[in-house]
Amino acid sequence: MRLRNKPWAEDKIKQYPQYVVPEPEKWRGKWRELFGNSRPLHIEIGTGKGRFIAGMAEQHPDINFLGIERQPSVIVSALDKLIEKELGNVKLLNVDGSRLRDFFAKGDVERIYLNFSDPWPKKRHEKRRLTYRMFLKLYEDILVEGGEIHFKTDNQGLFEYSLQSFSEYGLLLKNISLDLHNSGFEGNIMTEYEEKFSAKGQRIYRCEAKYRN
Amino acid sequence: MRLRNKPWAEDKIKQYPQYVVPEPEKWRGKWRELFGNSRPLHIEIGTGKGRFIAGMAEQHPDINFLGIERQPSVIVSALDKLIEKELGNVKLLNVDGSRLRDFFAKGDVERIYLNFSDPWPKKRHEKRRLTYRMFLKLYEDILVEGGEIHFKTDNQGLFEYSLQSFSEYGLLLKNISLDLHNSGFEGNIMTEYEEKFSAKGQRIYRCEAKYRN
Ligand SMILES: C[S@@+](CC[C@H](N)C(=O)[O-])C[C@H]1O[C@@H](n2cnc3c(N)ncnc32)[C@H](O)[C@@H]1O
Ligand SMILES: C[S@@+](CC[C@H](N)C(=O)[O-])C[C@H]1O[C@@H](n2cnc3c(N)ncnc32)[C@H](O)[C@@H]1O
Repeated sequence: MRLRNKPWAEDKIKQYPQYVVPEPEKWRGKWRELFGNSRPLHIEIGTGKGRFIAGMAEQHPDINFLGIERQPSVIVSALDKLIEKELGNVKLLNVDGSRLRDFFAKGDVERIYLNFSDPWPKKRHEKRRLTYRMFLKLYEDILVEGGEIHFKTDNQGLFEYSLQSFSEYGLLLKNISLDLHNSGFEGNIMTEYEEKFSAKGQRIYRCEAKYRN
Repeated sequence: MRLRNKPWAEDKIKQYPQYVVPEPEKWRGKWRELFGNSRPLHIEIGTGKGRFIAGMAEQHPDINFLGIERQPSVIVSALDKLIEKELGNVKLLNVDGSRLRDFFAKGDVERIYLNFSDPWPKKRHEKRRLTYRMFLKLYEDILVEGGEIHFKTDNQGLFEYSLQSFSEYGLLLKNISLDLHNSGFEGNIMTEYEEKFSAKGQRIYRCEAKYRN
């Protein structure tokens, strides 16, 4: 992975601390101070090139957004979108999602978006899937009570797995759509992968999973 | 509905008490006596023309099966299959599924099959869907602890609704398949509707929902 990084990516990221938050540990439990207001915080894990998080921030000025992406070579494309749009309610973290507890205290986050997460189809890679029970525990540890995961994918196997994993964990399933683009769902913001796969005629699956506490 | 009944259907049903159980209330809590053994009991609600229940009985001689169908004009086709196959482990009830408590005591039933249940797509008809929460309560009242519902349908809206209804009721979702016929699922017995819809290129959805008690 490292090999394919654009060598200048990390440098560029450092030049925009107003968009890619340096030392995110510092804001644990006090993201409101960083954003300068106490609006709800929604985060996306595996933001990729940032179309979704930038579009959501534009559509929902009353919400603060953080896009989390571990690959510098990818997050720079998201950074470009934020530079262009000049939005005050969205920032990026160039970190690994498995370290969420280092950056967020219980109750910091109101909603988590997972879009077209890597499917890891082999059973022996189950633990890497972002909807594996260990991740569901991680999310629980940073979400508000009754917080939600909003999940989209084109991958049938990952969607079947995730519904079962959510159910087994005791989450409440809501707004399941087995064909999002023909469902009447309003305000959908397409991600880069969503655009690509739906152009190929793939169905898009979506659901919401709510912690019952 | 009554108008379309074959007038001879009810007569024929009465001629085969060994296959269509007369006065099923009598066997409440003692179905083992009727079958003459203490094998687990699986029931199907909305059996239609009986291909599934007859095929399952053939495939699983160690299980007792009851097919429940309220329309006399339809259940006669299921009866014909039982007459032909001469199986000892399957019978029919010509009754309405909403009266299950009259025929089964808590723990009488180990598994419930729902296949291609009427979708009742209008919101105001939600209460008629066989996966509506009132029915899930009804099933709970006759199933063993940890009993299961096995559900198949081609109807996307009904499947989305049912997953949510199962989740809201607290059931555990297992073995979800969003394309049964391409899933590697073994031992599938096609129903009449399944044959018809899959021939038209429709996907078949399937899941299992387990009571957690
Ligand atoms: C298949 S891409 C989808 C990108 C984007 N969500 C979309 O729909 O276009 C998955 C992305 O998630 C990122 N990713 C995977 N696991 C991650 C993790 N644990 N932490 C942060 N990012 C992760 C990958 O680097 C990749 O950019
Ligand atoms: C759409 S058909 C499906 C038949 C069969 N399961 C198949 O897949 O070919 C639904 C059947 O369920 C029956 N049914 C609907 N509600 C019922 C109820 N409450 N009790 C008994 N049968 C019912 C209908 O009469 C009809 O025959």
